Amino acid sequence: MIYRIRFGAMIETDAVMRPEMAAKLLQGLDGKKGGLFDCIQIRKEEAIYCRLDRKDAVYGLGEQVRGINKRGWIYNSDNSDNPHHHEDTTSLYGSHNFLVIAGEKNYGIFLDYAGKVAFDVGYTEQDMLLIRPEDWNFDLYLFEGDSVKEIVRDFRRMTGRCYIPPKWAFGYGQSRWSYYSADEVRQIVKKHRENNLPLDAVYLDIDYMDNYKDFTVNGEAFPEFAEFVREMKRQHIHLVPIIDAGIKKEDGYSVYEEGKEKGYFCKKEDGSEFVAAVWPGHAVFPDFFHEEAREWFGNQYDYLLKQGIDGFWNDMNEPAIFYSEERLLQVFEKLESFKGKNLGMDDYFGMLDLVNGLSNNREDYESFYHDYRGRKIRHDKVHNLFGAFMTRAASEAFERLQPEKRILMFSRSSATGAHRYGGIWQGDNKSWWSHLRLNIRMCPSLNMCGFLYTGADLGGFGSNTTEDLMLRWMEFGIFTPLMRNHSAAGTRCQEIYQFKNLDAFRNILQFRYRLLPYLYSEFMKAALADEMYFQPLAFEYPEDDMASQVEDQLLVGESLMIAPVCEQNARGRYVYLPEEMKMYRLKQNGELESGILSAGHQYVAAELEELIFFLRKGHALPLAAGGNCVEEVDFDHLTVLTFGDGEISYRYYRDDGESRDYDNPDHISVLHVKGDCEMTAE
Amino acid sequence: MIYRIRFGAMIETDAVMRPEMAAKLLQGLDGKKGGLFDCIQIRKEEAIYCRLDRKDAVYGLGEQVRGINKRGWIYNSDNSDNPHHHEDTTSLYGSHNFLVIAGEKNYGIFLDYAGKVAFDVGYTEQDMLLIRPEDWNFDLYLFEGDSVKEIVRDFRRMTGRCYIPPKWAFGYGQSRWSYYSADEVRQIVKKHRENNLPLDAVYLDIDYMDNYKDFTVNGEAFPEFAEFVREMKRQHIHLVPIIDAGIKKEDGYSVYEEGKEKGYFCKKEDGSEFVAAVWPGHAVFPDFFHEEAREWFGNQYDYLLKQGIDGFWNDMNEPAIFYSEERLLQVFEKLESFKGKNLGMDDYFGMLDLVNGLSNNREDYESFYHDYRGRKIRHDKVHNLFGAFMTRAASEAFERLQPEKRILMFSRSSATGAHRYGGIWQGDNKSWWSHLRLNIRMCPSLNMCGFLYTGADLGGFGSNTTEDLMLRWMEFGIFTPLMRNHSAAGTRCQEIYQFKNLDAFRNILQFRYRLLPYLYSEFMKAALADEMYFQPLAFEYPEDDMASQVEDQLLVGESLMIAPVCEQNARGRYVYLPEEMKMYRLKQNGELESGILSAGHQYVAAELEELIFFLRKGHALPLAAGGNCVEEVDFDHLTVLTFGDGEISYRYYRDDGESRDYDNPDHISVLHVKGDCEMTAE
Repeated sequence: MIYRIRFGAMIETDAVMRPEMAAKLLQGLDGKKGGLFDCIQIRKEEAIYCRLDRKDAVYGLGEQVRGINKRGWIYNSDNSDNPHHHEDTTSLYGSHNFLVIAGEKNYGIFLDYAGKVAFDVGYTEQDMLLIRPEDWNFDLYLFEGDSVKEIVRDFRRMTGRCYIPPKWAFGYGQSRWSYYSADEVRQIVKKHRENNLPLDAVYLDIDYMDNYKDFTVNGEAFPEFAEFVREMKRQHIHLVPIIDAGIKKEDGYSVYEEGKEKGYFCKKEDGSEFVAAVWPGHAVFPDFFHEEAREWFGNQYDYLLKQGIDGFWNDMNEPAIFYSEERLLQVFEKLESFKGKNLGMDDYFGMLDLVNGLSNNREDYESFYHDYRGRKIRHDKVHNLFGAFMTRAASEAFERLQPEKRILMFSRSSATGAHRYGGIWQGDNKSWWSHLRLNIRMCPSLNMCGFLYTGADLGGFGSNTTEDLMLRWMEFGIFTPLMRNHSAAGTRCQEIYQFKNLDAFRNILQFRYRLLPYLYSEFMKAALADEMYFQPLAFEYPEDDMASQVEDQLLVGESLMIAPVCEQNARGRYVYLPEEMKMYRLKQNGELESGILSAGHQYVAAELEELIFFLRKGHALPLAAGGNCVEEVDFDHLTVLTFGDGEISYRYYRDDGESRDYDNPDHISVLHVKGDCEMTAE
Repeated sequence: MIYRIRFGAMIETDAVMRPEMAAKLLQGLDGKKGGLFDCIQIRKEEAIYCRLDRKDAVYGLGEQVRGINKRGWIYNSDNSDNPHHHEDTTSLYGSHNFLVIAGEKNYGIFLDYAGKVAFDVGYTEQDMLLIRPEDWNFDLYLFEGDSVKEIVRDFRRMTGRCYIPPKWAFGYGQSRWSYYSADEVRQIVKKHRENNLPLDAVYLDIDYMDNYKDFTVNGEAFPEFAEFVREMKRQHIHLVPIIDAGIKKEDGYSVYEEGKEKGYFCKKEDGSEFVAAVWPGHAVFPDFFHEEAREWFGNQYDYLLKQGIDGFWNDMNEPAIFYSEERLLQVFEKLESFKGKNLGMDDYFGMLDLVNGLSNNREDYESFYHDYRGRKIRHDKVHNLFGAFMTRAASEAFERLQPEKRILMFSRSSATGAHRYGGIWQGDNKSWWSHLRLNIRMCPSLNMCGFLYTGADLGGFGSNTTEDLMLRWMEFGIFTPLMRNHSAAGTRCQEIYQFKNLDAFRNILQFRYRLLPYLYSEFMKAALADEMYFQPLAFEYPEDDMASQVEDQLLVGESLMIAPVCEQNARGRYVYLPEEMKMYRLKQNGELESGILSAGHQYVAAELEELIFFLRKGHALPLAAGGNCVEEVDFDHLTVLTFGDGEISYRYYRDDGESRDYDNPDHISVLHVKGDCEMTAE
């Protein structure tokens, strides 16, 4: 059951596709009793209060720090370019206002709202969830259901089917800020190919452009780009360029000139251009909320599509702002007052705050406007939707420009609704073991909110990685739909051939390609049925009190449970099995060793080079023979691993991975197996 | 066996007390074979290389991030005022150049050296430990032994007995940056006393001073300070003021005037005062390396000792520098060049780096000098010793001024050698669960290096704590010799009476006071025998391969093992038992529940309010009845808990906790018990 309560007059968010699913429209909660109404109290213009029992868990909120169970911190929906994914970070790049309270009663809450929201999940009072929107103009949806899974499915159905990438995008991608030339990219590819390291994509970060100008290519570093794209395609490599939200303000640069002429950029109150600096220095920002501007911006992708590009990542679209012209001037002025002084504590830290406050400053977000559905709306009121609407611009353009084909698209910034237009990567993490754990925890929370095509920068983006962290992270990364190794300028190079134990990396990575039939099938089934691909144990075993405490194991699709090792120097880990399972160990020699583990707590050895995973009873795992790119993988001839007596059936989704007739029933075949076997899918 | 190899001409560090213990003086390793010589290679002016086998663990390095086993990162000895205790942090406030490689062979390494050292513990190559001192003027000590414990004991003996605090300093202390007045302190004490929350100390952070001037008291906020100290003492409360390294440069301020007149402050190359800003703005820095200056500075503590103060914490003694006069001028000049420009990426981040590089800048450390043993030495050459020598100044003064009494002294910055003069706290951590884990891991590493009196800011210093983190942290904190709750300005107040579940906090904290006979006895025995108080499991169970992987359990003294819960929302944890033990659970009602757990892996339930700990077989745990301050605790009438058949004996150390005749044999009595019992210690 879904209830909707409308407060004030919301700004449309594009989040809800099927508002009619909220069959019950309420005026408020006054007098309502029973079920979730016993748990929720609303004090208008103040907060929504939900009482939490000791054992209640709170799930959701998408891209946030901390646990799968979000209890014990404050999280804000307030999209931020924040590379500090710390325990005390309150907002990252996305806003996903959906959460589920699971306990004696299960209920869900969604705030359909573009503004800033604080979710105080037992921070101020351990037994209270407080939701404080910045203003009271939003639609509140309440979900009641027998299970968390049911509530999540209802939410997902209401907000629409998630983005589906092309199949090649399930291959491994190598990225770096930046590969500076075609020759460097060739070298990356060569090293992978000659070392038998599967690879499907190389990502181009900001330096492929001419002076950080979107929809240009640096002709010196990447001469004859279209031919280079073809050359790479012949090697089964997709080049995936980055697109930034800010457009360089430069006379003669056609994108800038055209957008300016048409009035498609965000404006200050007086109607003049809003200018702020990002990578190229002074830049302007397309008004993605304005339908024509969005269409115009989307059409720009064609410049690269026409050269054979079939995948993009949208970045800096919170939007990130280094500084605005006005603020920089102000700061320099204020700095004058500190000059020549004996600065005490307050002055000194005030000066640092001043300079460090240049970036992503709230006041700048309050200083420019959008033209949205005919209304002039100040940016901060829809700030959390900006990145989502950029992704929408791209996605809508792809449907117009290449209706027959899937284009890879994922973004840094996002909001509920954007899950229909693209995936997201989990932002600028660091080469920290705790960020491997965060990656594991964030995946199911994002899945709940519709972001199925997601993954983190494997090995860590900022800071220097270590060989063991890289390897352990790969052991988890092979299960994430988006599997990309990415790192920042100035950090240790972390292409996997940089490390000594190349055999171990190859073994793990090649296994990803053996898993592809299962991973792709499970992804597609989850996407098409509005289900989750990564699930916390608690969702599948709601009666199991222990399962709800497990923060570092996940269910992947219907058959697998994973328990990645994410402690440095550990040569094994504890695993909780909610039921008897078959454990597999991928040995260093590429062989799979298996054994049955009984339900309960287990300590499992897993050397650095060893991948472990678990097959659920009554389930099957179809494996391919592998390949050095997705195209090489034979999805028809399978080795099927099973656990359980008697016949086991597996609903197997296969398609060409390119076209968009997702729901064609021919894509599903049911595999019937008895024991492990080799088979050809019909 | 200890070997010493001298490279070049070292600057004396004050670390080694018994150089004669290094019976073997070597010229180098050429031609040496067998034992540790098969593992170590020295390439002069380059690095010391130690081959690491797969299962070798590397222990030591004192105050550093990451695990008990330090493998997998680079750690620098380069004392830094760094509140970012992250996984990729390479140096904190102390330099402790001692480590032990444990595996098939056990050996230790100590660099007696005041300069910067990089310890690359399997970062560049997983199987190689690389040690790179900044220059080759140091004494290298190599330790060979049958066990890690033996090597650690040899190192400790060679570097001298650790600092021993007064007994009251094992009580609970409440701190905050800052309590701003005597009335506020009275309130803190009152709240503890009226809620039956034991308390022995209140810490005074920088705001008790008159304008951040060392050895002054703000007479308005703390009128009649001596009387206030007495008033607190009557309530069994010790006030513990902070002392900073920087002396406010202010005409008329007697400490400044006198030090200036005598030439006791650090000077620039031209002999003029080195001036840099810290809390009070412009400040000067006593030359702790100069014997007379050190004595003079130490004597300043008498101003507070005479008012009844008997404990201090030394801070900002890396030394922390906000900015130097020269650098600030330079930065302002350079900023001019950015003015009015369209700053691209490089300029913008260059500008930020410029401003953020003001603090603790290496160039500033290279711009002033010490007068050390008659030589003019540039600060950066002895930078790592600065804090240690400040603590030495205090400690030597206490022995002169109050020879009969122990004075509490702990410091932020430290180096090997300083462990004889004071304890350390673990610096400006954050209210993060990962910092609770770091606290657990850092304790044994510091113990190895001689710092037994240590603890972290419970609940976390920076950032906002949560009730559950505070409680879980207390559950570990009751075992740390220094047990202090401290938090930064602007963060959530975290005195434990601020939280809802006061009963739980009281129960845990009161148990600290029941444990005191054991904790104090174990501390004293460890201190006097150059042993460790906190031990990793691996040190006690060297043959147990699993024990060496345990990073979140510790042995506390001879009888106890602890396994703190340090994951948010966990209601239990996995525990590895190297042998059968008796597990105790302190219930919410204050009762102890016990049961025997067999050796191996166990999952143990432990609700948020429940403390668990483990008693080793054949060992005893003496408990007192408790009290609201250390003085109230009866150390003679004991309840002794035991695990094992037959008679169990426990060497019990008791003294008055004030005087310095530590080695008086009368302080030891042997308790002989059969089963749990009440008894009076003879």
